[in-house]
Amino acid sequence: MSSIREVARIAGVSIATVSRALSTPDKVSKAALEKVQAAIAKVNYRPNMMARNFRAVRSYSIVVLVPNIANLFFSTVIRGIEDAAQQAGYAVLLGDTRDSVKREKDYVNLVETRQSDGVLQLRPHIPGVSLEPNPHIPMVNACGCENTPYASVRIDNAGAAQAVMEYLIGQGHTRIGVIAGKADNPHTIDRYKGYMQALEAAGIPFDKNLVVYGDFTLRSGVVAASHFARMKERPSAIFSMNDEMAIGAIQGLRTAGIRVPEDMSITGFDDIEFARYSDPALTTVAQPAEELGKTAFQSLLTLIEGRELQNSEIVLPYEFVVRKSTPNRR
Amino acid sequence: MSSIREVARIAGVSIATVSRALSTPDKVSKAALEKVQAAIAKVNYRPNMMARNFRAVRSYSIVVLVPNIANLFFSTVIRGIEDAAQQAGYAVLLGDTRDSVKREKDYVNLVETRQSDGVLQLRPHIPGVSLEPNPHIPMVNACGCENTPYASVRIDNAGAAQAVMEYLIGQGHTRIGVIAGKADNPHTIDRYKGYMQALEAAGIPFDKNLVVYGDFTLRSGVVAASHFARMKERPSAIFSMNDEMAIGAIQGLRTAGIRVPEDMSITGFDDIEFARYSDPALTTVAQPAEELGKTAFQSLLTLIEGRELQNSEIVLPYEFVVRKSTPNRR
Repeated sequence: MSSIREVARIAGVSIATVSRALSTPDKVSKAALEKVQAAIAKVNYRPNMMARNFRAVRSYSIVVLVPNIANLFFSTVIRGIEDAAQQAGYAVLLGDTRDSVKREKDYVNLVETRQSDGVLQLRPHIPGVSLEPNPHIPMVNACGCENTPYASVRIDNAGAAQAVMEYLIGQGHTRIGVIAGKADNPHTIDRYKGYMQALEAAGIPFDKNLVVYGDFTLRSGVVAASHFARMKERPSAIFSMNDEMAIGAIQGLRTAGIRVPEDMSITGFDDIEFARYSDPALTTVAQPAEELGKTAFQSLLTLIEGRELQNSEIVLPYEFVVRKSTPNRR
Repeated sequence: MSSIREVARIAGVSIATVSRALSTPDKVSKAALEKVQAAIAKVNYRPNMMARNFRAVRSYSIVVLVPNIANLFFSTVIRGIEDAAQQAGYAVLLGDTRDSVKREKDYVNLVETRQSDGVLQLRPHIPGVSLEPNPHIPMVNACGCENTPYASVRIDNAGAAQAVMEYLIGQGHTRIGVIAGKADNPHTIDRYKGYMQALEAAGIPFDKNLVVYGDFTLRSGVVAASHFARMKERPSAIFSMNDEMAIGAIQGLRTAGIRVPEDMSITGFDDIEFARYSDPALTTVAQPAEELGKTAFQSLLTLIEGRELQNSEIVLPYEFVVRKSTPNRR
């Protein structure tokens, strides 16, 4: 393996200059930089981190903070990120952070130490809890919520939830249960807002017994279903804040002898692939997951390249997909 | 931010010495190394990659090569890896490689450039196609197959497939369809071996029309089901080589008016969480996914630390889980 000494000898500069060229290339004259670069190429100096940073200043990799690697909605967003990143010549490193700010910091540290150029945060921003934006770290939030204090790409979660509710209300439902995520989760907060707005607009009184908090997992959907099944005055429809909980709820309702959609309608959110293959197939909100990922990467690239973002809060359109978990009538 | 110049001044050594201390510490005297180290601590020299490598030689991170980030079996293996890694003080970087050797090489490059200490490969080894082991790169294969030419942790795929088949044959089935993965996938090859062994042991003639190749996705399960539904002499049971394809097949059979398990039994492989929540709940092979991940990390750590592996091919036990997609009789 070639040494820094050899590079210095061939470039005809001091070792200190090579060292500076590697660590702080902007402090070295263009002529010296070129000599060092040529020498590195000539002796095939191992392209380690220093050489990489020297070659490009950038590492050409980004870190994606994923709150839950087992969530199929996130895997589709990640596919979109990867496709856009590959086109731009960037590698994507994934960090499964499990909603832990400590783990998030560990991964962001890769940017501080220049092993990575920027961060895509897939966890929605919770004021006072989440990682705060840092002016030295290019960071973009993807598929998050309203009031994100840095660049973001998302859908209108409140609006989508309201649209789902308006559809259910239009089908004649007045007792509509909701399976929410955790109470402090921004997705819960935004979608709950849409739930309330739709009730209010339709003049339907709010009943807190119709709200069950889950945690976006299949299992919490089953638990929520058993709550609704035990109620004296059951809801005739359920708005679930993601597909996993809706699929779990369908199974829980079936166990309790409640048929979907004959006895109870149910809707999901996200449109993961399993939504199409559940029985009955799930009526849900299709987020443009790949597009969210691609667009977020483009915003991040803009920041990494030091250019100005035209739009620091991009809201993409969603679709409402009607399948078999709501009856085909209006 | 402190500079290398400042470190050299405080340590009372030349910049070249600091540079050497950072890049090739073994070429610097112990006394000089200590002076540099103290100076770095004093001026709070930014702990960038060089400093990290200097401090510990290791990066305390590993790279996991994941063939498909949307596969829920892999996400559970990854959870096991992360838990073991965190206990050992290691960060886990995930690379979604999409069965591409080129992408795998990009991630392995992180180890060559010392940004990472080792590689966990989740893709089964295909001779002549897969990344070959490199003596300079600590690498372990997790949840792969027989004949992996480097350290591995897996289950006995052929044996598990044979056990599933023996169960179906024991229930009286003689026409048993199989939904395989891609033909050159080692998981397909090992599990197909078990399928053939069970047929042979039971004296059941092989019928190539009963073999359909998919690609481990829900959709390919639906396609396979329509093949079986169109057959004149349908199978009475189907062995699917993973859960996603089995869940897709159940939906495809339902569309064709074939009831599971009344008209046709079906079994899966892996025991992803959705297997429990499908309708009917899926009879399947439960791989010890978290344990596979944990054990693979332990093997990798052994290699990273330069110790010898007691067992370079670890085979963990699986469970056969009987649920509702096969009738409850013998």
